[in-house]
Amino acid sequence: MTRTDAATEGNEAAALLEYTRALVDPHLRAAVASLPGSIRRVAMYHFGWQNADGSPAAGGAGKAIRPALVLAATRALGGDPEQAVRAAVAVELVHNFTLLHDDVIDEDHTRRHRATAWTVFGVPDAVIAGDAMLALAQRLLAEDGRAMSPGASARLSTCVIELCAGQQADCAFEDRDPDQVSLDECLTMATAKTGALLGCACALGALYAGADDRAVRAMDGFGREAGLAFQLIDDLIGIWGDPAQTGKPVGADLSAHKKSLPVVAALTAGGPAAAELAELYRGAMNTRAEVGRAAEAVDRAGGRDWAQSCAADRMARAVHHLSRAVPDLSAAGDLLALAEFVTRRKH
Amino acid sequence: MTRTDAATEGNEAAALLEYTRALVDPHLRAAVASLPGSIRRVAMYHFGWQNADGSPAAGGAGKAIRPALVLAATRALGGDPEQAVRAAVAVELVHNFTLLHDDVIDEDHTRRHRATAWTVFGVPDAVIAGDAMLALAQRLLAEDGRAMSPGASARLSTCVIELCAGQQADCAFEDRDPDQVSLDECLTMATAKTGALLGCACALGALYAGADDRAVRAMDGFGREAGLAFQLIDDLIGIWGDPAQTGKPVGADLSAHKKSLPVVAALTAGGPAAAELAELYRGAMNTRAEVGRAAEAVDRAGGRDWAQSCAADRMARAVHHLSRAVPDLSAAGDLLALAEFVTRRKH
Repeated sequence: MTRTDAATEGNEAAALLEYTRALVDPHLRAAVASLPGSIRRVAMYHFGWQNADGSPAAGGAGKAIRPALVLAATRALGGDPEQAVRAAVAVELVHNFTLLHDDVIDEDHTRRHRATAWTVFGVPDAVIAGDAMLALAQRLLAEDGRAMSPGASARLSTCVIELCAGQQADCAFEDRDPDQVSLDECLTMATAKTGALLGCACALGALYAGADDRAVRAMDGFGREAGLAFQLIDDLIGIWGDPAQTGKPVGADLSAHKKSLPVVAALTAGGPAAAELAELYRGAMNTRAEVGRAAEAVDRAGGRDWAQSCAADRMARAVHHLSRAVPDLSAAGDLLALAEFVTRRKH
Repeated sequence: MTRTDAATEGNEAAALLEYTRALVDPHLRAAVASLPGSIRRVAMYHFGWQNADGSPAAGGAGKAIRPALVLAATRALGGDPEQAVRAAVAVELVHNFTLLHDDVIDEDHTRRHRATAWTVFGVPDAVIAGDAMLALAQRLLAEDGRAMSPGASARLSTCVIELCAGQQADCAFEDRDPDQVSLDECLTMATAKTGALLGCACALGALYAGADDRAVRAMDGFGREAGLAFQLIDDLIGIWGDPAQTGKPVGADLSAHKKSLPVVAALTAGGPAAAELAELYRGAMNTRAEVGRAAEAVDRAGGRDWAQSCAADRMARAVHHLSRAVPDLSAAGDLLALAEFVTRRKH
């Protein structure tokens, strides 16, 4: 692919995301507006629509990749995306439910360049707002009244349970010694935390196109594999990303001792570089020199190459799944553009 | 009602609860067993089926009042309770989702005479287990595949949002000055926190009996009003209950500065007793003498009488709703026995 192709594809994805936000945002806002006032306040802050004092804010509610996948999957299977808006809103609500709770659990202070909800409103209000958003997502599907809604609701609930398992595993890994986490466990965790909801978004899109079970499952596989590729690229950016573009210091994930996929691949590779990395992970890694040495050790132990080739492999698997759901891949251009977008982004 | 009648009714309710547990428990256990291992562990501890180390525990999973209401409502409307077991399990899972999160939010250390889940497994695991239980409840209804399931799912989701609003209001009241909480706000909060799920349980039972919308709404009203009566009695027990039966010290709710319904009724009544109570609530209330004076002040300000007559009034309203759902009240004996049981219990 030439640079011009990539740029065109980037523009195509950007246009798709803009189209999605224009279609989904009013419904998302209406859904959030139906929440009781005290909870709505926290939700509107979290989405970037209000400041903490309740005054309007211009901030966006994220890139809307998951709703875009819902609508693109519906279109790829010959459905009308406008009929799938409710599912797109439900998926976006579930995504934001996980963000609210994960920020509490991980004690993260910043999200989308703003203070996280729990730091502004306290842990109780953030937990409660997340709970209410999950229930709201379910209510939207339950009130949809169409033949595919119960199936969509069951898939979304199953996905939430997998997201919970992923988040739980992520927390458990933090407490374990660097060399006590296997790469398989880490891949399972990343699939649960990131792949499951992207897969669910695509599967719900397929359901709302009236697709058969085989196509729905293939769409789920496409989203899952693309999601894992997305996570691998995200992990690489967390180590080697350009601070000017990521808004984070060089090697931010390393100094936070994150057991990301390239790091675990390096730690479990054996050899002197792996041993050096494990030693650095047992220490504080406060200095830029130490962080630089850790990044080099990940590279020398093969973690960087592994993550890059694993991401490519997962994208190939994703496209294979997609071709089973949509035999004429020319109809799946939007989905491919979105997948390329999330795995090529630089920040 | 004579003492013998009351005793008979108590036995009737006890038999109903036993019947419910026998019918529902295997399905509840099977649902929980379907959760991923790391989450199942926390859930099984919370339900009292396992100790923290994973060894079997004999503890029960609570009285099963909500599932009993589901099944009794189905029967009262001519349905087969066995067809409503899935709804009963879903309601019990939602109840336990709220307990897991409320214990985290309220920083409560004891539940059903055991250490709360968050004190044993940490806040992250308790929050995650609650999330997964809520999703599991929704999955059960979504996978039910019957005509009434989407309606039941929508009602349950709407109820969860109301439970969230109630818990949020409860937290917000804790931070406000004793005389800044109105009785109306307090009643709305108690209805949301306690009445909503009891109402939802009865409404789901009606839905699974194939009842029409009018009967479903009347059943919801019955459960809500009975739930509020239950809360009022619970609040009275929290002040004047026998420590030997409640397992808590005399006036436990007072020394915890809880703004329960009788307390708020007293505080907002005006007069010298209300002023004395407000003064005591602004202090530490560490001594038995102070707690005793507070209880007396609630009584003198009319909080105790108000709560007793309000509970009776709410029970009358509950029965009125019930008579609209089930014109021949003799068919609703189980529901009445359960309502009497929860409003007459001593611990």
